[in-house]
Amino acid sequence: MKSCEKRHLAVIGGTAAGLSAASRARKLAPDMTIAVYERTGYVSYGSCGLPYYIGDVIHDHRELIAYMPEFLKKERNIDVKTHHEVVDIDLSKNVLMVRDLEKDALIETGFTDLIMATGASPVIPPLPGIDLENVFALRIVEDGIRIKNRIDGGEIKRAAIIGGGYIGLEMAEALKMRGLEVLLFEAMPKLLPSLDESFSDAVEKELTKNGVSVHKATAVKEIVGNREGKVCGIKTDNGQVFYADMVLVSVGVAPNSRLAKKAGIEVGYKEGIVVDDHMRTSAPGVWACGDCVQMYNLLTKKPTYIPLGTTANKQGKIAGENAAGGNATFKGVLGTQVIKVFDVFIASTGLTVESAAESGMEAICSRIVKNDRASYYPGNKNTHIHLILEKGTGKILGAQLMGGESVAQRINVFVAAIAAGFTVYRLNELDLAYAPPVAPVYDPILIAASEGIKALKNN
Amino acid sequence: MKSCEKRHLAVIGGTAAGLSAASRARKLAPDMTIAVYERTGYVSYGSCGLPYYIGDVIHDHRELIAYMPEFLKKERNIDVKTHHEVVDIDLSKNVLMVRDLEKDALIETGFTDLIMATGASPVIPPLPGIDLENVFALRIVEDGIRIKNRIDGGEIKRAAIIGGGYIGLEMAEALKMRGLEVLLFEAMPKLLPSLDESFSDAVEKELTKNGVSVHKATAVKEIVGNREGKVCGIKTDNGQVFYADMVLVSVGVAPNSRLAKKAGIEVGYKEGIVVDDHMRTSAPGVWACGDCVQMYNLLTKKPTYIPLGTTANKQGKIAGENAAGGNATFKGVLGTQVIKVFDVFIASTGLTVESAAESGMEAICSRIVKNDRASYYPGNKNTHIHLILEKGTGKILGAQLMGGESVAQRINVFVAAIAAGFTVYRLNELDLAYAPPVAPVYDPILIAASEGIKALKNN
Repeated sequence: MKSCEKRHLAVIGGTAAGLSAASRARKLAPDMTIAVYERTGYVSYGSCGLPYYIGDVIHDHRELIAYMPEFLKKERNIDVKTHHEVVDIDLSKNVLMVRDLEKDALIETGFTDLIMATGASPVIPPLPGIDLENVFALRIVEDGIRIKNRIDGGEIKRAAIIGGGYIGLEMAEALKMRGLEVLLFEAMPKLLPSLDESFSDAVEKELTKNGVSVHKATAVKEIVGNREGKVCGIKTDNGQVFYADMVLVSVGVAPNSRLAKKAGIEVGYKEGIVVDDHMRTSAPGVWACGDCVQMYNLLTKKPTYIPLGTTANKQGKIAGENAAGGNATFKGVLGTQVIKVFDVFIASTGLTVESAAESGMEAICSRIVKNDRASYYPGNKNTHIHLILEKGTGKILGAQLMGGESVAQRINVFVAAIAAGFTVYRLNELDLAYAPPVAPVYDPILIAASEGIKALKNN
Repeated sequence: MKSCEKRHLAVIGGTAAGLSAASRARKLAPDMTIAVYERTGYVSYGSCGLPYYIGDVIHDHRELIAYMPEFLKKERNIDVKTHHEVVDIDLSKNVLMVRDLEKDALIETGFTDLIMATGASPVIPPLPGIDLENVFALRIVEDGIRIKNRIDGGEIKRAAIIGGGYIGLEMAEALKMRGLEVLLFEAMPKLLPSLDESFSDAVEKELTKNGVSVHKATAVKEIVGNREGKVCGIKTDNGQVFYADMVLVSVGVAPNSRLAKKAGIEVGYKEGIVVDDHMRTSAPGVWACGDCVQMYNLLTKKPTYIPLGTTANKQGKIAGENAAGGNATFKGVLGTQVIKVFDVFIASTGLTVESAAESGMEAICSRIVKNDRASYYPGNKNTHIHLILEKGTGKILGAQLMGGESVAQRINVFVAAIAAGFTVYRLNELDLAYAPPVAPVYDPILIAASEGIKALKNN
């Protein structure tokens, strides 16, 4: 505890980071007052579940929500104010200006400690027609409800997705599951641009197999509307026009750091709020966490920006603990990710050869393909592993996996190995599990290690 | 290479360890002559696949076999002699006495280097009736063929399995899949005696649900035969008699070390051949590997005996490399295992609280249950994790998992963490993968870590 004076913690943002922070602070500081300001109508939800809600894998949006404001008040004594947008922070007076969006009233409220968990927002390119009806982005629960209601209404037959990254691909699957025609446009020459070309190709094949029409190296230049102000198509940079009655924009997200910047708090890489390993911002008594902050790569120690729900939750806990007088640290991220695209799973962690080079590390990539269970056991699937190794030392810098569902777990072995600073020689010695229904006697991870060792020798 | 003189490597045993050794030696020493003596008719097979062959998941026993002798001769210049049993080793003269089992002839053959990969054999308890027809053990391909043929013939309706360990449970499933009535007898008060009682209970429930009749704390005292000398039942220690027309004995295995012992080679824990980290035996120029050797536990550094296919393969490579003049080492085992029992998967690695105590380490066990994917995502299964932590330091000593198929991969994260010497605090920081279809935002591994930290504080 910082002192005996009564403390008031204000948390801006009530999803992963903000509510983790508030809950952690409450646990450590039972006497602190804690208020969470959330501009949308929902807190404590998993936005990563939205594509599955739209795809009707999840029927009710309430399933996405872990805790309701009433519960948080009653069980954790946290005041959750939804539809409340913080519009200004005065750090000289420790005062927030908050707009009650339902009453359209401005409220001034004080704090002794502040946690910024303002998240990120979809990047909306300034295309002609971007404001037409049935142009959507997907970030908050309301986005999901809006899209799902429109599909449920039956007026959407053909959707154009702008952007072939994680959200774009998950939404392609979701919309296809709803019976729509789906067109996917990616301005770069490949899908999932940060991944290896062979993985992008496989994902493209899987999408095509499932009826998604993929257009790579194709930038959308205009969204075309009809007389009613609704989307009726898109126009690409080569002049082609595609009919569509819905457009989903998924070209990335950017940190919501404007409020912090306006208050004089330092922002850094990609405008993420600068924080130290205690999640402290440049302003004393102000912490920040989640998708609004700049992160550090565990391997390169350099700033990066990889907004993920896992990181947001962890950083929230750290910020909350420290705001309550604790001394917790967050060491950095590897950027571990996994995505399901129909029956193909892709997972990655750490660096690629290219990102290693950007940080001055010379790396090689060793590739293997191996069954994910005993070759004679039914249902086995090819697991592709690309192992990124530092030249000379053989230190593991990253891994990219593609295959069946098991890649989602196998990637985590690489995460642990990288966190441990393992070389590929250490990886090769791991006493991994084996049983014919679940793994071959040499797990694909061990095959990747032994091939990696060979590749190091030949480089 | 050791010298310029022509070297002759003899390998006794042609399954996982022996053939790994021979193949590795061949790669490093192209000029060495290499002969492999195998007493059965098959080499290079996965004996762990035998239950799946009997269960008809695998239809043809040849699917279990990676390489045929002809291939090994042609592609690797390895002389494989099946049906050849080495009956004596004269280390003073570097001579083997080999019995050609088909011709029933004794052959004397010299060697410059010798690798013992004699494996293990099922322990056969000296029960009355143990020699009756339709009493089986399961270890070699011939055992599998014999059992499967007998079932295919239609004369087996009801099988009694003696022993509720890994093989017993896998065979209970396999025989059930063939439509037999299956009775399982375990002398100890629980199945899988080395595991936690709650896991044993869950496995028992799964077996019962699938129609296996489980009898714990019930020792079989006699196998009863009919006039034709065939099994017709078993008698237990409480005098009950159960009808059965087949008995499978699966009460464990013991290293085949008699030959080594007779030759004056040192044996140790549970009669396993004593080897150092180079897989050298006490006799110069003689290596040993696989299920016939004593192992070292990576954590306790003490002798142990955990015969596994993974270990056999790895040790074989090391022995082969060193026999060819290399300098490879094998550091030890954690004893990582995984088993599928119908729809329940159990995986374990490292120590239990009890085995830690035996090595003088005070440990606690922290238990959690958590969904293996987002709670709202269909098909999610409870994952149980028991995390074994050293008191005080929080060092990870072991983990036991039960749940769906994903435990087979999640266990490997603990394997890596233990190999790295991680504490639970380090485990808690791992940047693990998250996507609703494959993992919750806090992976069960992270929940286990944070609960483990709490448990440490309370202990």
